[in-house]
Amino acid sequence: MRTRPLKVALLGCGVVGSEVARIMTTHADDLAARIGAPVELAGVAVRRPSKVREGIDAGLVTTDATALVKRGDIDVVVEVIGGIEPARSLITAAFEHGASVVSANKALLAQDGAALHAAAGEHGKDLYYEAAVAGAIPLIRPLRESLAGDKVNRVLGIVNGTTNFILDKMDSTGAGYQEALDEATALGYAEADPTADVEGFDAAAKAAILAGIAFHTRVRLDDVYREGMTEVTAADFRSAKEMGCTIKLLAICERSEDGASVTARVHPAMIPLTHPLASVRGAYNAVFVESDAAGQLMFYGPGAGGSPTASAVLGDLVAVCRNRLNGATGPGESAYADLTVSPMGEVVTRYHISLDVADKPGVLAQVATVFAEHGVSIDTVRQQGKDGEASLVVVTHRASDASLTGTVEALRKLDTVRGVASIMRVEGE
Amino acid sequence: MRTRPLKVALLGCGVVGSEVARIMTTHADDLAARIGAPVELAGVAVRRPSKVREGIDAGLVTTDATALVKRGDIDVVVEVIGGIEPARSLITAAFEHGASVVSANKALLAQDGAALHAAAGEHGKDLYYEAAVAGAIPLIRPLRESLAGDKVNRVLGIVNGTTNFILDKMDSTGAGYQEALDEATALGYAEADPTADVEGFDAAAKAAILAGIAFHTRVRLDDVYREGMTEVTAADFRSAKEMGCTIKLLAICERSEDGASVTARVHPAMIPLTHPLASVRGAYNAVFVESDAAGQLMFYGPGAGGSPTASAVLGDLVAVCRNRLNGATGPGESAYADLTVSPMGEVVTRYHISLDVADKPGVLAQVATVFAEHGVSIDTVRQQGKDGEASLVVVTHRASDASLTGTVEALRKLDTVRGVASIMRVEGE
Repeated sequence: MRTRPLKVALLGCGVVGSEVARIMTTHADDLAARIGAPVELAGVAVRRPSKVREGIDAGLVTTDATALVKRGDIDVVVEVIGGIEPARSLITAAFEHGASVVSANKALLAQDGAALHAAAGEHGKDLYYEAAVAGAIPLIRPLRESLAGDKVNRVLGIVNGTTNFILDKMDSTGAGYQEALDEATALGYAEADPTADVEGFDAAAKAAILAGIAFHTRVRLDDVYREGMTEVTAADFRSAKEMGCTIKLLAICERSEDGASVTARVHPAMIPLTHPLASVRGAYNAVFVESDAAGQLMFYGPGAGGSPTASAVLGDLVAVCRNRLNGATGPGESAYADLTVSPMGEVVTRYHISLDVADKPGVLAQVATVFAEHGVSIDTVRQQGKDGEASLVVVTHRASDASLTGTVEALRKLDTVRGVASIMRVEGE
Repeated sequence: MRTRPLKVALLGCGVVGSEVARIMTTHADDLAARIGAPVELAGVAVRRPSKVREGIDAGLVTTDATALVKRGDIDVVVEVIGGIEPARSLITAAFEHGASVVSANKALLAQDGAALHAAAGEHGKDLYYEAAVAGAIPLIRPLRESLAGDKVNRVLGIVNGTTNFILDKMDSTGAGYQEALDEATALGYAEADPTADVEGFDAAAKAAILAGIAFHTRVRLDDVYREGMTEVTAADFRSAKEMGCTIKLLAICERSEDGASVTARVHPAMIPLTHPLASVRGAYNAVFVESDAAGQLMFYGPGAGGSPTASAVLGDLVAVCRNRLNGATGPGESAYADLTVSPMGEVVTRYHISLDVADKPGVLAQVATVFAEHGVSIDTVRQQGKDGEASLVVVTHRASDASLTGTVEALRKLDTVRGVASIMRVEGE
């Protein structure tokens, strides 16, 4: 074994960073044996140096992250700051000054992954980011390496633990969105400002990353259709139950049937209770991958938290260190397929639509005609009436999102349709 | 991209081999883009060259596998023959003649993994074998690379599809073992001679491989306790149901509580219906991995079959080819931890024991005394009597296998115990 240690600079020492530092210290011998050389924590960049950090030599702590990554003797920079800047500049500077990078930064990777990969490639360095998607769950590496000889057709999963906790709570207790969110906040599963989670921004970033890797095609964050779960109601869960379904916030990356284009989207959807994703509880994550040869694979585990994220970071750290000792680099960006990324309108799926309608003869015929005119085939209709008001619940066969949107617009113009109570996609069948 | 192709020799062209060849041909452009150089099928060694092999150039087919691996211009040998010999000699010769190896051969890897890794290392070549365990499910790579910075404490899973199909059938239909086996055979899930599957040899080989990688310790096939599932009865399933459990054939690799030793075992076990492994149906495989930092991860997918196994083989092929272009090798054997592999007697778990006893006062007191004398604490007892005969069902708290064995031996000597109807371990709680 090489005795000269590989030097690691840690950017950020919060929940994840402090756990990375702790494991690097307590498991130093294991890491050295697995890498083939010792690893040494050479510097820790933080915003508030006064905060006591147990187990970290105070002499390693600095507020000057830029100076740290530019030192020139750093082998690997571990970036767990999050956000776009200063993370992006620091990672770029790291490559320029000879370091490889391990990052857990989904927002940055989703927005600037291509440019960062290019910078890594230009300097012959590695950029690894298993921790950016689904925490501890090995997902990037299986997609990028294990399935490198296969053709992935779909990635469908629960990639945000906060929203899964909220939806699971709504499902199991009948609570409304706000009540479930309050509980998630009280328990620390939701942040004070939960926007990134509940509006689907976090999941959309992960979907962009996953779609890019799965389809060997650059998928920008703007390419990902995004719909949050703040509008999901207790009534939606009751409707879902009547259909033998539950509701999950899903990230779905799909290849079109002709194989020429791909789509990526995040939205709440009904899935059958028999689907394995339906039983993913609390803040856990789970991702289905469907490919030509392998068939259906599922990956399940804790999608967030200090220790699970640190596990993924350290797995990458070991890989990057091994590559460095080998004088090699791991797989970089693979975007050769360069498939068209289609807009949401071209997505084909099924829909569950609740309409408030007048309770009089001929309404169903009118509604059915509108669906037919837009080429949306109806699977089932359920009609419930009382006191001159009625509701119609329509479940469609597979249709394009554009056709469904056209249908709903036309329905809203019908005098007999008082309102569209909810529209939800049905997935996982 | 390099234009000179990497040359691949395929040993075996059955269900898996023919699928590997087919995908190499139909997805040649994708593979080339992902590797950075084209791959070329340079030779296919088979036993019966007369058998028509669609899509494979007849000029590539040979019966002389030895000459093929010794050609000297082969970059990667893909071994999908199975069995110990001639696979072992061919793989060794491949390393000696400059090739890296991708294998799907669990029996060989479990028996001779250490020697083969040594041979690969000596010649600076790669030995990859994702397909040897759980078919298409990425498991070796996640354990070896994604969790390389973590400490794995347990691997627990269903790694044999044939036995899972049989047990699932027994569970859902109430069928006996023979009836379920007959159906599995008729449907092609079980081989004409099902011994390797139903007696747990196949699962034991996989357990040895998984334990070795998970614990960075050499685990020999002989170190794995093995108990098949041919003795599992419909009555056992009824008992399991009464406990809210089902029965699965599990491979379990565990680190002891003090961390100093490990065990590996394969046997039928009751697991709670609420455990995710309980809902693994048909011939699917699923494996739980528990580690210090990541927590609980699960990997699920098709555990066998031509296409799924080919997916795993091709993922390895891409990795090995990339390494070769990089002038590097991937992670080899990691056995530095060199932990003690303890015998079955030291395994600690819970037990479900059915006793046929005389239906008279004092029997329960006698039986309870025997458990107490052997230090096995009883969790629940259920007593059922009729016509002077009675049965006692005892579920224990956690105890060592040695203590339980001692208890059962003593129970058999009691006059009032007519027989020990069944003993089954209870896992996954």
